[in-house]
Amino acid sequence: MGIVPARMDPLVENLWQLGFDAHYGLEMLEIDAERVVARVPVRPELLQPTGLVHGGVYAAIAESMASLGTGVGVYPDLVPQGLSNQTSFMRPILEGFIHATAVRRHRGRTTWIWDVELADDQGRLCAVSRMTIAVRSPRP
Amino acid sequence: MGIVPARMDPLVENLWQLGFDAHYGLEMLEIDAERVVARVPVRPELLQPTGLVHGGVYAAIAESMASLGTGVGVYPDLVPQGLSNQTSFMRPILEGFIHATAVRRHRGRTTWIWDVELADDQGRLCAVSRMTIAVRSPRP
Amino acid sequence: MGIVPARMDPLVENLWQLGFDAHYGLEMLEIDAERVVARVPVRPELLQPTGLVHGGVYAAIAESMASLGTGVGVYPDLVPQGLSNQTSFMRPILEGFIHATAVRRHRGRTTWIWDVELADDQGRLCAVSRMTIAVRSPRP
Amino acid sequence: MGIVPARMDPLVENLWQLGFDAHYGLEMLEIDAERVVARVPVRPELLQPTGLVHGGVYAAIAESMASLGTGVGVYPDLVPQGLSNQTSFMRPILEGFIHATAVRRHRGRTTWIWDVELADDQGRLCAVSRMTIAVRSPRP
Repeated sequence: MGIVPARMDPLVENLWQLGFDAHYGLEMLEIDAERVVARVPVRPELLQPTGLVHGGVYAAIAESMASLGTGVGVYPDLVPQGLSNQTSFMRPILEGFIHATAVRRHRGRTTWIWDVELADDQGRLCAVSRMTIAVRSPRP
Repeated sequence: MGIVPARMDPLVENLWQLGFDAHYGLEMLEIDAERVVARVPVRPELLQPTGLVHGGVYAAIAESMASLGTGVGVYPDLVPQGLSNQTSFMRPILEGFIHATAVRRHRGRTTWIWDVELADDQGRLCAVSRMTIAVRSPRP
Repeated sequence: MGIVPARMDPLVENLWQLGFDAHYGLEMLEIDAERVVARVPVRPELLQPTGLVHGGVYAAIAESMASLGTGVGVYPDLVPQGLSNQTSFMRPILEGFIHATAVRRHRGRTTWIWDVELADDQGRLCAVSRMTIAVRSPRP
Repeated sequence: MGIVPARMDPLVENLWQLGFDAHYGLEMLEIDAERVVARVPVRPELLQPTGLVHGGVYAAIAESMASLGTGVGVYPDLVPQGLSNQTSFMRPILEGFIHATAVRRHRGRTTWIWDVELADDQGRLCAVSRMTIAVRSPRP
């Protein structure tokens, strides 16, 4: 993959290879507390019945990127917890990759805000997501 | 399943058994143009690395329910198209089922709005989603 | 006014009669930590150029109601702070009153979530708002 | 003011000097179908009781900017109509100006999406708003 997560904690690094992220096929490319880059190959299992990528896939990608980016920034003192996910859909994707870039907009004491852009292989903006991530004390 | 979709078009009825909905395990229980009930059994493939259901799962459930409910109401003259998905997370789910109920709040000429509630086996509200669905002319 | 805020702190009770709330004409009718009722008389100063109530008025009403309801519940140990405001517009209001009801959906340790409905004199739902309010320690 | 609205229709140009926009003090500085710049001087009438600018002011500014920018782009064939307003609050403003920049993210056939940033006199990002504006046929 060639992933070189600049300030990545080894405990966090491979989290996206587990569970739901693996199930829909997330591929993390860059992970940083200010910017995260990822992609997802479009497969039949990600489509709506009409042949377009399901809206929940975009929301899931955004959620994971913002959570992981925040986690890189606050772990192990604090842990990220998704608070809200606002995703708007602009243009369908039918094949190829979903290319996603998350940029941090706010690093507050208790919440971080990320803007995520999701594009197709032609670089056209297909969805945008605004993620609000709470940072909490880890449970013992 | 015992699904009896009151005003369901046969072409629409089984759409949720395909693609991404099948991939994460959506089970539609009631489908109507005003109210949709569904559930999803929690499996390891739906979890974040920390063992909680991934936020994208809630968003995906809400998206499918609102789209299908709108589709039932407007098909075949018009087709639904997700416009935005705002999901807020309140309480984690770790096991059992995600129980979801979608209620239509607005039936406009060009957009429908749905509120979706997602609860755990104890009936506790765990997430809420506000879906805006555009209704469009079908492409030829 | 006949306002009888059940659990209202006297320091909080009249807050809506100051500043921006007074400027656009908020009238609080019931204030509780679970439910808030208010209304705003439509005046020319609240309209868009096309003669409809400006979308910012609905957002402002929702913000004040959710903040005040949360404040009643947590003050003086904690104070409310608006985190996000998602308002959807369904039907215009041109005259009469904006009738607003806010219902608390979540009372978390660090955030409260409220759903606000805004209706016209005929009781038709014209806008809905989902407010997320953080609760913080007061600054000394 | 020095406003030079590049592609501004004379019928649209002064709309922000009426009604609610005038009431809270909107000053449009640049108006274009891709980008809108505005500011609002902070006055006591715009504050919450705690002395911070009321969240509804940010939402109102974003609403007007996105509506007017869309209006410039589609008028007189079509007219803008606010569909949803998602505003997140990051940092309070107490005095000076609210400086706002709206950038169009999507120009669809039926909806436009704008991202609005609101900053203080020091250039710090204080709120962000995502506006969805429907474009409709004008009523006769």
